[in-house]
Amino acid sequence: MNDVIKIAQMAKDSAIKAQGLLTEIKNFALNKIAVALEESKNDIFNANNSDLETAQNDLNNGKITLSAFNRLRLDENKFRDMVQGVRDVAALNDPVDSVVWSKNIAEGITLKKVTCPIGVIGVIFESRPDVISQIVSLCIKSSNALILKGASEAVNTNKAIFNTILNVLNSIEEFPQNMINMLYSRDDVKLMLEADSYIDLIIPRGSNSLVKFIKANTKIPVLAHADGICHIYIDEFADIKKTIDIVIDSKCQYPAACNSVETLLIHKSRLCDILPKLVDKLVENGVKLLADSSIVSICNKVSLACEDDWNREYGDKILSIKTVNSLDEAINHINKYGSKHTDCIISENDENAEKFMSLVDSSGVYKNISTRFADGFRYGFGAEVGISTSKTHARGPVGLDGLTIYKYKLYGNGDIVSDFVSGKRKFLKD
Amino acid sequence: MNDVIKIAQMAKDSAIKAQGLLTEIKNFALNKIAVALEESKNDIFNANNSDLETAQNDLNNGKITLSAFNRLRLDENKFRDMVQGVRDVAALNDPVDSVVWSKNIAEGITLKKVTCPIGVIGVIFESRPDVISQIVSLCIKSSNALILKGASEAVNTNKAIFNTILNVLNSIEEFPQNMINMLYSRDDVKLMLEADSYIDLIIPRGSNSLVKFIKANTKIPVLAHADGICHIYIDEFADIKKTIDIVIDSKCQYPAACNSVETLLIHKSRLCDILPKLVDKLVENGVKLLADSSIVSICNKVSLACEDDWNREYGDKILSIKTVNSLDEAINHINKYGSKHTDCIISENDENAEKFMSLVDSSGVYKNISTRFADGFRYGFGAEVGISTSKTHARGPVGLDGLTIYKYKLYGNGDIVSDFVSGKRKFLKD
Repeated sequence: MNDVIKIAQMAKDSAIKAQGLLTEIKNFALNKIAVALEESKNDIFNANNSDLETAQNDLNNGKITLSAFNRLRLDENKFRDMVQGVRDVAALNDPVDSVVWSKNIAEGITLKKVTCPIGVIGVIFESRPDVISQIVSLCIKSSNALILKGASEAVNTNKAIFNTILNVLNSIEEFPQNMINMLYSRDDVKLMLEADSYIDLIIPRGSNSLVKFIKANTKIPVLAHADGICHIYIDEFADIKKTIDIVIDSKCQYPAACNSVETLLIHKSRLCDILPKLVDKLVENGVKLLADSSIVSICNKVSLACEDDWNREYGDKILSIKTVNSLDEAINHINKYGSKHTDCIISENDENAEKFMSLVDSSGVYKNISTRFADGFRYGFGAEVGISTSKTHARGPVGLDGLTIYKYKLYGNGDIVSDFVSGKRKFLKD
Repeated sequence: MNDVIKIAQMAKDSAIKAQGLLTEIKNFALNKIAVALEESKNDIFNANNSDLETAQNDLNNGKITLSAFNRLRLDENKFRDMVQGVRDVAALNDPVDSVVWSKNIAEGITLKKVTCPIGVIGVIFESRPDVISQIVSLCIKSSNALILKGASEAVNTNKAIFNTILNVLNSIEEFPQNMINMLYSRDDVKLMLEADSYIDLIIPRGSNSLVKFIKANTKIPVLAHADGICHIYIDEFADIKKTIDIVIDSKCQYPAACNSVETLLIHKSRLCDILPKLVDKLVENGVKLLADSSIVSICNKVSLACEDDWNREYGDKILSIKTVNSLDEAINHINKYGSKHTDCIISENDENAEKFMSLVDSSGVYKNISTRFADGFRYGFGAEVGISTSKTHARGPVGLDGLTIYKYKLYGNGDIVSDFVSGKRKFLKD
């Protein structure tokens, strides 16, 4: 048996005990972790400097990108947010042991649907060491055991943060041993993905290619999104001002985000009024435009798009534009090329908007509002586990409740099925 | 591209359109299917007789078991239940397009969490042809596309039932083409399990080995339970009469059911009072008993159990009995050997019961009530998609809502994220 399986087994044992953790104990631990992180700040920054030194060489040699280097670097702001994030999770409602509903199925027999933790969560993340305290906090609050695997270039920072947290948990006797665990070797990822007898849910935090690799290589349910190919459809009945405001915000406010728009679909009837104004504004904002031939033929500020452009997440100030003949064509295009993330219709026609929102098969369907709102914090969840484009378990921005499932508690008083089969007793109707 | 992938692709296209099906149309179709099945009764029974003739040879040659032969046979009762089942699904509430919650995240911005179909459901079932109409009804009602694969020994019956249903759907123009599909070849199962780009959820209906095979061979989420190793723990504070009633019902009322009890755990303090009476009653009911050495040494009506007995689903009038020294030992035993299906504590001590129900990691945790209650109909769901022992999506008896997920609908009026980042506007607090 390899070490990863041993750790996963111990995490599973620990998960059973963690189910009984009281809210007060969990919040006490979280607040103590926040203090401990503050107290270990120097050690954590020293460890980060050591990682940055190695990374600087890799950067100079072209082995890593500047953005990867920047993600690795802790600074005062990131550290403050990291610590505040732990306190914020402490302030959230406990997602566990909450009665979803309760009813009497027969006289004297009460059925309760009650939330409970999932069990063992596996999180595989790249570079950003500030993710650790966030993930650990969410798992503590939801009473799940955790196996973390961070990037090797952040190994010293990860160790410093993780050990600070582990020391706190080890000092609180109510916390089961091995509830949180950290793996450091790249080879461990493969072993984690095979540990489907022990790990109940995998959450990758990182690039599209990381997410795709993980989805392709495990039978464990994965909570994530790979691509974020978001669309805005400018309907026949779109308002010009709203269109310009929303498109500029969706593309330019933070182009690297997964909820930024990548493709505009425009109803053919709006090529003459909305399109020229919108193109001017986009170009003014430094956006490079690629469009179909009918748009290229009437507008000299755009280049010709190829088929591949409808499939691309630019993550940059680039936008593809396509003419559609109808609402149906827009819906079909999005369902074919989209990534089930977030798609918006701009329209003053409620019927068109409702049709779009019903038939576009995405986790977020928007009407007259920027795609950049797709975010757990903006939705008011108080925390974001990730954004999921799966079709089961959890979808869209996932809050703390995405780390829970439910069990049925049935309370009787010596009741037997025979009495119901014989007709002596009857189940209650709703 | 093979035929199964083509069918799966077409089902996926159809699933998009099925999202827009109105409740009235779905119910109209279901009631029309019920009538059509009644009208095709002779054809269906003729087809079944033809399957039974072949199966009779297989039975004589020992190729199939008597119970498989009986599952294949339609009779008046099964047929009536089958038709009534379709009408019952028509009478259920529509699980789609129901607003889970709705809130204003900022002034003028409304977020709605709305239920929607999952997409394409794959169902692989053994022998029982009466399953078809049930599964099709549930998928129609939840607006999901469906790919069915039945057992080859029921091919004629399956075709007769399926074609009757298909004719009805084809006669209603609102129903998208290829919403329900049927595969007949054994080789198609493997291809279905690989179609993870098209099929969103697999539901196996059949033996433990079928479920295990499917779980081991697909990346598609599986809604099912493999084993049903249910426990009853007789606590230090158990009531004798309740214990005897519940244990007899849980073991004898229908021993082949997955929610029948397979292992009793008894607190050491109750070996002298409860055990002898319980053993007498079980033996009287024809139950064969296997127990640990401490029980064998004081009771001559039981045989010695081996380690393997704690892992076995007998599905028959056989019961294993183990002494435990404490509630904790009972909890640990169940979490180690159980199947996360349904486990019960018999106790008059509320604290012990709550601890058991909190720490036993099963989809159903019961207090003083027969394990045989674990059933979607008994829970009042009006339908049962299956019983799930997974840790994500759906758990325990799963009703129609297990075939749904949700999307977020966000309604704005030209709102942009920049205004919130700049501080010009603020999100509302809960």
